[in-house]
Amino acid sequence: MTDITLLDLLSDDKEFATRHNGPDAAQQKMMLETIGVHSIEQLIDQTVPAAIRLPETMKLAEPQSESKMLASLKAIAEKNIINRSFIGQGYYNTLVPNVILRNVLENPGWYTAYTPYQPEISQGRLESLLNYQQMVMDLTAMEIANASLLDEATAAAESMTLCKRAGKSKSLAFFVSNEIHPQTIDVVRTRAKYFGYEIICAAIEELENHDVFGALLQYPSTTGNVQDLTDIIDKAHAKKTLVSVASDLLALTLLKAPGEMGADIVIGSAQRFGVPMGFGGPHAAFMATRDKFKRTMPGRIIGVSKDSKGKPALRMAMQTREQHIRREKATSNICTAQALLANMSAFYALYHGPEGLRKIGRRVHHLTAILVAGLDSEGIELANRSYFDTITLNSNENSKAIYQRALANGMNLRKFPTPDNMPVQLGISLDETTTIKDVEDLLLVITGNALLASSFSAQIADDEFAGIPAACRRSSQYLTHPVFNKHHSETQMMRYMKKLENKDYSLTHGMIPLGSCTMKLNAVAEMLPVTWPEFAQMHPFAPTEQSFGYQELAEKLSTMLCEVTGYDGFSLQPNSGAQGEYAGLIAIQRYHQSNGDNQRNVCLIPSSAHGTNPASAAMAAMQVVVVGCDNLGNIDHADLKAKIEKHRENLSCIMVTYPSTHGVYEEGIQEVCAWVHDAGGQVYLDGANMNAQIGITSPGFIGSDVSHLNLHKTFCIPHGGGGPGMGPIGVKKHLIPFLPGHIEVTESADNKHYAVSAAELGSASILPISYAYIAMMGEPGLTAATQLAILNANYVMERLRPHYPVLFRGKEGRVAHECIIDIRPLEAASGISNEDIAKRLMDYGFHSPTMSFPVAGTFMIEPTESEDLTELQRFCDAMIAIRHEITQVEDGEWSATDNPLVNAPHTQVDLIEANWTHEYSRELACFPSAHTKETKYWPTVNRVDNVFGDRNLICSCPSIENYMEE
Amino acid sequence: MTDITLLDLLSDDKEFATRHNGPDAAQQKMMLETIGVHSIEQLIDQTVPAAIRLPETMKLAEPQSESKMLASLKAIAEKNIINRSFIGQGYYNTLVPNVILRNVLENPGWYTAYTPYQPEISQGRLESLLNYQQMVMDLTAMEIANASLLDEATAAAESMTLCKRAGKSKSLAFFVSNEIHPQTIDVVRTRAKYFGYEIICAAIEELENHDVFGALLQYPSTTGNVQDLTDIIDKAHAKKTLVSVASDLLALTLLKAPGEMGADIVIGSAQRFGVPMGFGGPHAAFMATRDKFKRTMPGRIIGVSKDSKGKPALRMAMQTREQHIRREKATSNICTAQALLANMSAFYALYHGPEGLRKIGRRVHHLTAILVAGLDSEGIELANRSYFDTITLNSNENSKAIYQRALANGMNLRKFPTPDNMPVQLGISLDETTTIKDVEDLLLVITGNALLASSFSAQIADDEFAGIPAACRRSSQYLTHPVFNKHHSETQMMRYMKKLENKDYSLTHGMIPLGSCTMKLNAVAEMLPVTWPEFAQMHPFAPTEQSFGYQELAEKLSTMLCEVTGYDGFSLQPNSGAQGEYAGLIAIQRYHQSNGDNQRNVCLIPSSAHGTNPASAAMAAMQVVVVGCDNLGNIDHADLKAKIEKHRENLSCIMVTYPSTHGVYEEGIQEVCAWVHDAGGQVYLDGANMNAQIGITSPGFIGSDVSHLNLHKTFCIPHGGGGPGMGPIGVKKHLIPFLPGHIEVTESADNKHYAVSAAELGSASILPISYAYIAMMGEPGLTAATQLAILNANYVMERLRPHYPVLFRGKEGRVAHECIIDIRPLEAASGISNEDIAKRLMDYGFHSPTMSFPVAGTFMIEPTESEDLTELQRFCDAMIAIRHEITQVEDGEWSATDNPLVNAPHTQVDLIEANWTHEYSRELACFPSAHTKETKYWPTVNRVDNVFGDRNLICSCPSIENYMEE
Repeated sequence: MTDITLLDLLSDDKEFATRHNGPDAAQQKMMLETIGVHSIEQLIDQTVPAAIRLPETMKLAEPQSESKMLASLKAIAEKNIINRSFIGQGYYNTLVPNVILRNVLENPGWYTAYTPYQPEISQGRLESLLNYQQMVMDLTAMEIANASLLDEATAAAESMTLCKRAGKSKSLAFFVSNEIHPQTIDVVRTRAKYFGYEIICAAIEELENHDVFGALLQYPSTTGNVQDLTDIIDKAHAKKTLVSVASDLLALTLLKAPGEMGADIVIGSAQRFGVPMGFGGPHAAFMATRDKFKRTMPGRIIGVSKDSKGKPALRMAMQTREQHIRREKATSNICTAQALLANMSAFYALYHGPEGLRKIGRRVHHLTAILVAGLDSEGIELANRSYFDTITLNSNENSKAIYQRALANGMNLRKFPTPDNMPVQLGISLDETTTIKDVEDLLLVITGNALLASSFSAQIADDEFAGIPAACRRSSQYLTHPVFNKHHSETQMMRYMKKLENKDYSLTHGMIPLGSCTMKLNAVAEMLPVTWPEFAQMHPFAPTEQSFGYQELAEKLSTMLCEVTGYDGFSLQPNSGAQGEYAGLIAIQRYHQSNGDNQRNVCLIPSSAHGTNPASAAMAAMQVVVVGCDNLGNIDHADLKAKIEKHRENLSCIMVTYPSTHGVYEEGIQEVCAWVHDAGGQVYLDGANMNAQIGITSPGFIGSDVSHLNLHKTFCIPHGGGGPGMGPIGVKKHLIPFLPGHIEVTESADNKHYAVSAAELGSASILPISYAYIAMMGEPGLTAATQLAILNANYVMERLRPHYPVLFRGKEGRVAHECIIDIRPLEAASGISNEDIAKRLMDYGFHSPTMSFPVAGTFMIEPTESEDLTELQRFCDAMIAIRHEITQVEDGEWSATDNPLVNAPHTQVDLIEANWTHEYSRELACFPSAHTKETKYWPTVNRVDNVFGDRNLICSCPSIENYMEE
Repeated sequence: MTDITLLDLLSDDKEFATRHNGPDAAQQKMMLETIGVHSIEQLIDQTVPAAIRLPETMKLAEPQSESKMLASLKAIAEKNIINRSFIGQGYYNTLVPNVILRNVLENPGWYTAYTPYQPEISQGRLESLLNYQQMVMDLTAMEIANASLLDEATAAAESMTLCKRAGKSKSLAFFVSNEIHPQTIDVVRTRAKYFGYEIICAAIEELENHDVFGALLQYPSTTGNVQDLTDIIDKAHAKKTLVSVASDLLALTLLKAPGEMGADIVIGSAQRFGVPMGFGGPHAAFMATRDKFKRTMPGRIIGVSKDSKGKPALRMAMQTREQHIRREKATSNICTAQALLANMSAFYALYHGPEGLRKIGRRVHHLTAILVAGLDSEGIELANRSYFDTITLNSNENSKAIYQRALANGMNLRKFPTPDNMPVQLGISLDETTTIKDVEDLLLVITGNALLASSFSAQIADDEFAGIPAACRRSSQYLTHPVFNKHHSETQMMRYMKKLENKDYSLTHGMIPLGSCTMKLNAVAEMLPVTWPEFAQMHPFAPTEQSFGYQELAEKLSTMLCEVTGYDGFSLQPNSGAQGEYAGLIAIQRYHQSNGDNQRNVCLIPSSAHGTNPASAAMAAMQVVVVGCDNLGNIDHADLKAKIEKHRENLSCIMVTYPSTHGVYEEGIQEVCAWVHDAGGQVYLDGANMNAQIGITSPGFIGSDVSHLNLHKTFCIPHGGGGPGMGPIGVKKHLIPFLPGHIEVTESADNKHYAVSAAELGSASILPISYAYIAMMGEPGLTAATQLAILNANYVMERLRPHYPVLFRGKEGRVAHECIIDIRPLEAASGISNEDIAKRLMDYGFHSPTMSFPVAGTFMIEPTESEDLTELQRFCDAMIAIRHEITQVEDGEWSATDNPLVNAPHTQVDLIEANWTHEYSRELACFPSAHTKETKYWPTVNRVDNVFGDRNLICSCPSIENYMEE
């Protein structure tokens, strides 16, 4: 016990790395022995090509202990000034119900779950996401809704392409109302540019004068105006124009729904339903549309299917779309959703119920009406006479004074900028948190007079909804399903959320050994700052002087990421990996264009690439050229060279993943980069496998020009059960000018900011997680993490290799941070498929590895550094036990149609069958290992029928009878 | 939807009550119909005697919304100033591991559980508490430890009476070292006074000169001195003196254990093992002793037994002690433990493991050694030359200047007060959070010179432990059990805690309808402030000017409680209900004595009283006289009058519970009070059933003089799985001077402060919970809560009455907030006992109501206002279904020895039995209701064998093999 020096003793700064990384020294020793090397260094030498090893260690600050990091991050947070925000513009204060805050947002049972690809162990959040869809459908009065998109602006852009896909117009023009939130217009413009669509931005009355394939309107408009859209939509339909309406869920508690006005698509943000603004994100956006467009709607959709016993079971509908994304034909590359935040919003709706939501809507509206009455009484002119919660003052020459007076009183108003940057209009949006006193304070700073709100309230009582045109008042019901009407006490709410949580497998139960996603520890110390009010309550468009904390955080994190990746600059704007790819490819295109190389549009992509790569390239107006791979999974250098030669003049870039999606550090990656550069192309290195690089090599060192990082994989942002994600991009110096800008911060006369996301920093409020991780790990911790990720993967590979063929290994027989085992020969011999094994793993208490990516009929296993030897052994033991079960099928001891594999997963319902007719025991079915006897995780449904679900797509909450058995 | 007025609409201030209270208006209507009344008012009129109804509503501030309350409480919290604390004296800063903070302290799965009386659904926290016991046994080197006591001072007092009970000395004197923490001495003095023990307080060398039954020493001493106690203890033993040693768990990582020096008892605080100081509490104290004293050790002890299948199963050992507390023969009245906090400390030990703890111990010690070396180099004189983490400066005339200089630098030192209040000594204690910089800062403020810590560190390296006498250095191992050696990564730690959590039934699963404890909602908004640093990190003996926030909180809460109870003053010191009783009775005795009525020592107690009542009376040196009850459970007025008459001269008081423990509002309670007053006695009204009074009646209005409140029942402090509790006492004006004082705040020359707890405000850090509850509910919410508690109880009673005899009802057939159903006739007819029903309820997914209290063979059911109709129906349906099952046994359809009742609870192990030999199905066994099919809560062991466990008492962690099956 005394082998620590006294100086080491005096600080716990290096302790965090030993908490994040799973295997301790003794375990590492045992694992190295299993692998047959004497040190981690030797393993790394055998695994990672010498040519790409970093010549010196990363220069990061010394690691900080958890408490020291929290103290220093708190000091940064406190540089944010939280004013009362009346800015609106798509972001509103909200009261996060505390029971949701604690039991969902701050609960690893919810935030550490993976995307629900394995429905049998995900019924909890699938139910909640179904509630989310039902909530959106009800409030928008549409036939189908998806389970969230990234933000309102990208949802608007997705609705544009949906109009194109679903509509019959041949036009290449898209109409955008000039009363749309400016950040939305900006993202739509970026998207349209690369699809070659013309954007016509004008007053909505002009729509009928244009031949466009689609139109985006906003209701209520960005200035607050509420206008019946029925006629406008009718006229558009007559010209084969589909109409997408951006709307607001709270407004729709009082307003006639866009669906009732004929809208084809309704999109918007669910942020104000119980998710903090967080300087712009994350929160869930929504999209709802007509039933007939369901198969072309982007994003994830939860559907009702049945399980192998015929009981109702939920699943992600049409999920094969995602892995077989439409590649180079794609008009959307969306993968990650905002599951955690969508769930929070769905729970918010459950908690308040229809009456509660309507009450909140009425409160906000009545306070707005009081404000209007007060301003009227003082003769202040408004731009809009109809409104829900937002008004715009024609304050003209008084604008600056009012704005400053408000600021001096801790209140932020919205400035409508004019060319000379002198506002002539000011916007005010009220929200759930607004009080009478706030309204009186507003009246005082605007009029200079102290006015009594209650006197105006009495005036209004005759017609509470006078601010809403008669044609726009809602008469239809919403949220009538029982689920929205029975969890209103905190006790019931807590139990409902706990019930759903307990259905779902998360990192609290055991490892999630995916290869497609790095499911490592999401440490509590990293998560705590997310809900600090200094980070949570900041409006993204608050004056710059109020967000110094966020700016410092972004700057520090960017500096850290530059050091880790070898890049020179970062944009934190993209809020998913796919969006990062898109932003990176646009940067490349803009770079070429700046050099006059407008013809460069060919994107080389190895055949092993993830489907989002070609999809992103297609969205960036590139022509995808596929490069072959050899039988070891490596890029076929001859083919690559030939393709480069063939497309030399038009070569834009290559997109590669490193280590490859096959889990191997390819030799010669630097040559690949050099060949492409030599031909004038750029190198995009997909950061999905960054966890195998940090501290050992880096994209910048390898020779790449741009990469996105999945902060929700490598840098500890939790997966949230299917989002949030965060996909910032790093670039070399020459690409820095082409990083995405943002209308609120970029000076640009032509409105071309190339924004990809609604907020400048994307999902800013989760950036502290990655910052905290790097600050606490420091260089030694991060490098050790990479080494241990490799050690763990090689340990698992060596344990499984005698039992399962390992598909790809490096030249010394090592794998990177993940490995692929091949089930196809086994299936040929036994009939047992990788799906059977995946489901059987549930019986053993595990989440399946990634199935059939990048190679059909295989598993990709990535244990990550956070799992210790005990857990790895438990997993390997389960895999080996399953292999023996397969042998029993092969040997005919069990029939091919009745064995624990094809019947997996087993549930409690199986166990109570009076007559057990199987050839194996109840015990073997449900408790196949010692660990399951000690701690059993139960799948709650039997194997879910995917085909049935897709053929009979039901995406709304089923009537309660479907669930009842008695 | 439009029946809300616009003004109602403008605020959500009244919303919290609708979240706390379960039944909504529609449900209330249905329940009133079932009961057969037309309104709640009618029900209350039928239930509560008119004479005791409050003439007017309580005067409380308007209710606040959750967000408003949190903002106003934050403003109060921010009045606390958190300095760096070097005060020590039993309270130390600690780094709460964030993974424990979030997953235990902030997790309702842990904090809403009840005391583990039902072991089959409590194996998680029982395992953790067993770990706690093992940790204490290991570090103290004693043979047995209990599962926590309230604080170090009361543990010391309990050790005194244990010495008396267990020892053979006839002496009535108890020796207390003068180097004990002053607050400990104070509490021991109070306790000794009423047992008639003489306290001899002197230097430990004097012990051998006294004939005492026991001695309390401290190691390290309050001044920091570390001295081998072996010889002193040997000499004491020779005189039949048992020796209790107060010690410190962190010190024992380096110091020879008291057990190794011959100590008979070791007590202390586990606070610094990962529990915030919280201005004094709550945290766990510990007690360890010799195996041969185990059956007389106070407090709860977790033991290993087996279940009906012979598998190891944990349980509270000898728990019948608690319900059959030794009443008037008692020398301890302890019930509530500090389970939640003991669990946090046990997890802290698991998280760090033996090496980690020793490292922390070494760090703290080395920093202390550096401090000493620095002071030595400047010639500063110390009172102690041996030390672990604490030194005392003989700073004489410089004391005040040093103290102030430290203060000016944000550092609190300990002042040793002298008669003229001028300190001549200053104390400094270091802790886990101390850094090198802190030590350098200390050296600077003490010596005036900037000294470099690292140079002293090098000097010390030769003998790191020079500050510890050779005889006191630890050589023995500790925490060698595997459980302390495998959960060191955050991932493993999270999973272990989640695994244990998932074994335990808590309010997150369903109702806990106890009658002995009010298990209502513990709302998140109430819990959030507990972990705010402004409340959590305050040392209880920080200078008064730094704790204005806590003082304001205490004052406001006391004012609220006065209004609610009708009392004139409150003491928040007692940190359990039993301790409140004790403090209240002492106040009564001191009052009588102040009137010269020294002879008044008779305490009348109805036979229905809870066992703690007579136990507390005995501890307050009272003679208990039992008053009979009539067959309706009411006090026998004739007997009462006779007893009053008989003891008129010596009558001290009566202790009554209201509504009675039989769940009825007794008529004539005011007369009872009047009769007692008339005879010169005082009325103690036990506040256990306060939940049936608030807003409708009050102890003060009824005529009582003093009550304790169980804040952890009525006022929403969560039960924590067996503590914390909080038992403040309210008194009428004439008793205010006799409330407990505290050495740190009370001026008193004779050291008689009558303290009952180590800290002035007891468990101060959980007071915000009750404050928040009252602030958010306001008068209307609290009154509605009482009404709904009564409504819910009467609903359950009416639903069950056709199936089970209801034992006691008021004259109009109503019950108060709880009801007792009688199982004895059923048992006589069927052989099915109330225990069988309790265990069968687990199969249905419920925690049993209170069994056999206050009447053997019955259930007492208290649903509380927080449960809604859905949950009440689910419970009643289960009880009725069970009744039908009993009928099947009565009718002989099932045999008396094999039926789902006697075999309950059923586990997963039952379900996988290959041969199901029972007369009922697997399905009926485990899924007897629709709800269990939807959401099954699983008991993890079969019925636990109590007798076996008590006969074969094992209170340490069993070797791991015992748990393994394969």
